[in-house]
Amino acid sequence: MMKLPNAKDIAAAYTRIQPFIHQTPVLTSESINLITGAQLYFKCENLQKVGAFKFRGATNAVLSLTEAQRVTGVATHSSGNHAAALALAARQNGIPAYIVMPDNAPAIKKKAVAGYGAHITFCKPTLADREATLQKVIDETGATLVHPYNQWEVICGQGTASLELMNQASDLDIIMTPVGGGGLLSGTLTYIKEQFPAIEVIAGEPKGADDTYQSWKQGHFIPCIDPQTIADGLRTSLGVLTYEIIQSKIDAIYTAEETNIINAMRMVWERMKIIIEPSSAVPLAAVMENPAHFKDKKVGIILSGGNVDLGHLPFE
Amino acid sequence: MMKLPNAKDIAAAYTRIQPFIHQTPVLTSESINLITGAQLYFKCENLQKVGAFKFRGATNAVLSLTEAQRVTGVATHSSGNHAAALALAARQNGIPAYIVMPDNAPAIKKKAVAGYGAHITFCKPTLADREATLQKVIDETGATLVHPYNQWEVICGQGTASLELMNQASDLDIIMTPVGGGGLLSGTLTYIKEQFPAIEVIAGEPKGADDTYQSWKQGHFIPCIDPQTIADGLRTSLGVLTYEIIQSKIDAIYTAEETNIINAMRMVWERMKIIIEPSSAVPLAAVMENPAHFKDKKVGIILSGGNVDLGHLPFE
Repeated sequence: MMKLPNAKDIAAAYTRIQPFIHQTPVLTSESINLITGAQLYFKCENLQKVGAFKFRGATNAVLSLTEAQRVTGVATHSSGNHAAALALAARQNGIPAYIVMPDNAPAIKKKAVAGYGAHITFCKPTLADREATLQKVIDETGATLVHPYNQWEVICGQGTASLELMNQASDLDIIMTPVGGGGLLSGTLTYIKEQFPAIEVIAGEPKGADDTYQSWKQGHFIPCIDPQTIADGLRTSLGVLTYEIIQSKIDAIYTAEETNIINAMRMVWERMKIIIEPSSAVPLAAVMENPAHFKDKKVGIILSGGNVDLGHLPFE
Repeated sequence: MMKLPNAKDIAAAYTRIQPFIHQTPVLTSESINLITGAQLYFKCENLQKVGAFKFRGATNAVLSLTEAQRVTGVATHSSGNHAAALALAARQNGIPAYIVMPDNAPAIKKKAVAGYGAHITFCKPTLADREATLQKVIDETGATLVHPYNQWEVICGQGTASLELMNQASDLDIIMTPVGGGGLLSGTLTYIKEQFPAIEVIAGEPKGADDTYQSWKQGHFIPCIDPQTIADGLRTSLGVLTYEIIQSKIDAIYTAEETNIINAMRMVWERMKIIIEPSSAVPLAAVMENPAHFKDKKVGIILSGGNVDLGHLPFE
């Protein structure tokens, strides 16, 4: 059995990353509470640096490097939040970052990563070419791979969001996160189920990309194939490490329909005046599809990120 | 000379309204600091209840009523944030609210005010008909007028935003607000210039609605006629009370071009992941038009509100 992180590792990660991250606020909305019948506490990782919780894991990975590794730097392939997170975490610590991005990535994302001073290598938009290109970059530079989710230090970093949430909101009955690759969910489960075993940890997942739900129900790993969801951060399969943690600790996974994800996203924008990306809206959509389970419960929801293209919004 | 509120009145207002309002967070953005060359501290009144600082003044007005006035309730005419603020403040205190709204007000605003349980009377969209209709409502109900800005209790309530900001951020060199009717600016000036006279208080105003700038420069009251600005909250003239306070205490007023207001608004959305309405972006636009004045300064900016129509955004 593989070695899994524990709550103490997450507390250590928090001490390590605290000077570099934002302590994000926990916001509430009376009108959304009224609509859902639950008491919701939104942990705003959309307000984290680079606009996503990913900055926690990337920062912890960078700060966990050896002196020799700091010299050769870090590398990853990503077109999304992890690329920006790793690029900024590396720059803040004065170490090189090598990012492999598909050449069809949105211009705004390329610009963001370049703006953080990372070395970008473009590749074809296939997983095979991304991995081959990344391997080539690593071979040439000696950089250390930082995986977007299936990595010990990354999971510990993501778990610090729920540690911080527990310092800000008390007496929670339930904590929810979205699940894509499973880094945020694994870190949350690791911390909460050890420190606060009475709190239920529930994942929200798009019905159009419900591989984690299917894996959990069927008791074995099922990959994410042909995901159909607006929640672009959640179109990913679990890794071996995140699968193991989720399978052994999760209380429940609820899926959500696409229209409900968009409605939940709009509700947060309109009622709370914060920008969340579709992935962040999935737990709230799941709450609204399953009101009985959440009625009168105190529910912490980790809003995972806020990176959207303002020129292409799903609102009318 | 009329009696003006002082810092003690604002402290008293804060004690009064604190159980009813959100203590809104103060957020920072390294990337916006890098772009502007200043250190900016954004006081997020867009995250206040009803999405605007207006809830502070409305709540203070409601809590300042006599027992007899509580029975007959409050009234105002407004198509914007003040209407929603007064409606919710009244409901939270179990008193009736009568709102006169122009019949061409956006459906979403009508719905919001009705959702807070206010009695709505529609009128023609002219100032004359708004005032006549309001007078009729007051004659019939005996309700107490709560003006959106030109009223003592309202100004004291708005001043609590800067009191709170000073508890959250230290060593500020400058505090900025937008200016429309002048309630937020008057409250800020009242508190800051008495308690922290070394801090500069600077207003940002759209160049297309620069009546306060012109009044200040020319030394007499100039009304806001035919305003041309996207900042819908700032298309208003000062009142006698707000004019008096601003004229006697303001350090400077900077105007901002429309394109810069929209760019500043988009910058806050994209970099900070919070929704601000165009009015809120005016001080930041003014900072960007006048970089020399703000270079390396610690600047508190009160983001006044976040109420926008998501179906009609000024972004491409």
